[in-house]
Amino acid sequence: MPNELLACYQACIDTLRASNECYDACLLETNPAELKECIRLTRECADMCAFAAQAISRKSPYVEQICALCAQICEACGHACGPHQHDYCQRCAKQCFQCAEACRAIFA
Amino acid sequence: MPNELLACYQACIDTLRASNECYDACLLETNPAELKECIRLTRECADMCAFAAQAISRKSPYVEQICALCAQICEACGHACGPHQHDYCQRCAKQCFQCAEACRAIFA
Amino acid sequence: MPNELLACYQACIDTLRASNECYDACLLETNPAELKECIRLTRECADMCAFAAQAISRKSPYVEQICALCAQICEACGHACGPHQHDYCQRCAKQCFQCAEACRAIFA
Amino acid sequence: MPNELLACYQACIDTLRASNECYDACLLETNPAELKECIRLTRECADMCAFAAQAISRKSPYVEQICALCAQICEACGHACGPHQHDYCQRCAKQCFQCAEACRAIFA
Repeated sequence: MPNELLACYQACIDTLRASNECYDACLLETNPAELKECIRLTRECADMCAFAAQAISRKSPYVEQICALCAQICEACGHACGPHQHDYCQRCAKQCFQCAEACRAIFA
Repeated sequence: MPNELLACYQACIDTLRASNECYDACLLETNPAELKECIRLTRECADMCAFAAQAISRKSPYVEQICALCAQICEACGHACGPHQHDYCQRCAKQCFQCAEACRAIFA
Repeated sequence: MPNELLACYQACIDTLRASNECYDACLLETNPAELKECIRLTRECADMCAFAAQAISRKSPYVEQICALCAQICEACGHACGPHQHDYCQRCAKQCFQCAEACRAIFA
Repeated sequence: MPNELLACYQACIDTLRASNECYDACLLETNPAELKECIRLTRECADMCAFAAQAISRKSPYVEQICALCAQICEACGHACGPHQHDYCQRCAKQCFQCAEACRAIFA
């Protein structure tokens, strides 16, 4: 696998994990109402990253379009989680922005 | 596709939809804390049903084992949503129990 | 669910099934070499349709972008399967083009 | 995440990649008829591993049952790819058996 795709695969995998860990932690909070947007977007982001990781590793002919969409959804998830001070939100946001960048390197 | 598999495919598809609609509605409630278990299990159930629908339609050699797991997760989701009086929770629970039955017909 | 989204959900579900049935039948042929492109694109298409059905039913904020990508992949799968005279290829192609149209109605 | 779950998450991710790379390479062979079983099981295995990685990272209440099924499908994929001498089949088989072991550590 070319280096850029491998980096993107790894970023998707790390973001899948960070998003799902954030999702789980948000649901355990006493007041999940404050975190609705995080809950919704971390699921969105985890599913998108899993889909992108599948596409990259099976050499999908649509890998560029899929990474373009993944970049967009990772960005949105980063912006939803970034304003929250919980460790897991911060980790998720940081990972999302990094994954968006790795995805942009594929379709740019 | 044999009748029982087709019925199970359709039940999975209907439960994927009912679970996701319940998930979305729960997140829109003013007090999602009361619905944490629904939120978690409707996602679990929707993902399991999508996985089972894929397996049934591609004639997976593991369709029986996958349907056995799907029955278990649908049951759990039905029990999580059943006690809530919202229309979408009731619809989801009813659909989940029906899907569990359709799945049991495959591996029984 | 609005009518257009419901129609698109159903089209995705029918195409998931037709694509996977075509994939399975192609793999059972004595000469799958002639059908490589079908095998690859039916998997691509089934996975995309499952992803879109999930997105539609959970009211994803990215449903338009996801349907746009789904339309593109369905078109490609229809063009890969269309030239083959097997019943399952013809059914798949017809279903793919119909799904592409239903997806375009979402983001148009 | 506890060490055993983290090891299992990583094994699923590595097996998702090895399976999909094997699937892609099998489809590029001049005689894919010899590799039908690999093609079918590598897809089965990649999808199962992606599903398991999602379940592990979102702390699914069904992680043990999902890992039990994942172990079974990884074993089957390893046995399908093992007899073939292509590098990618050998890599895939080795990775599958390692993932099956990591999964068994979760539900044992």
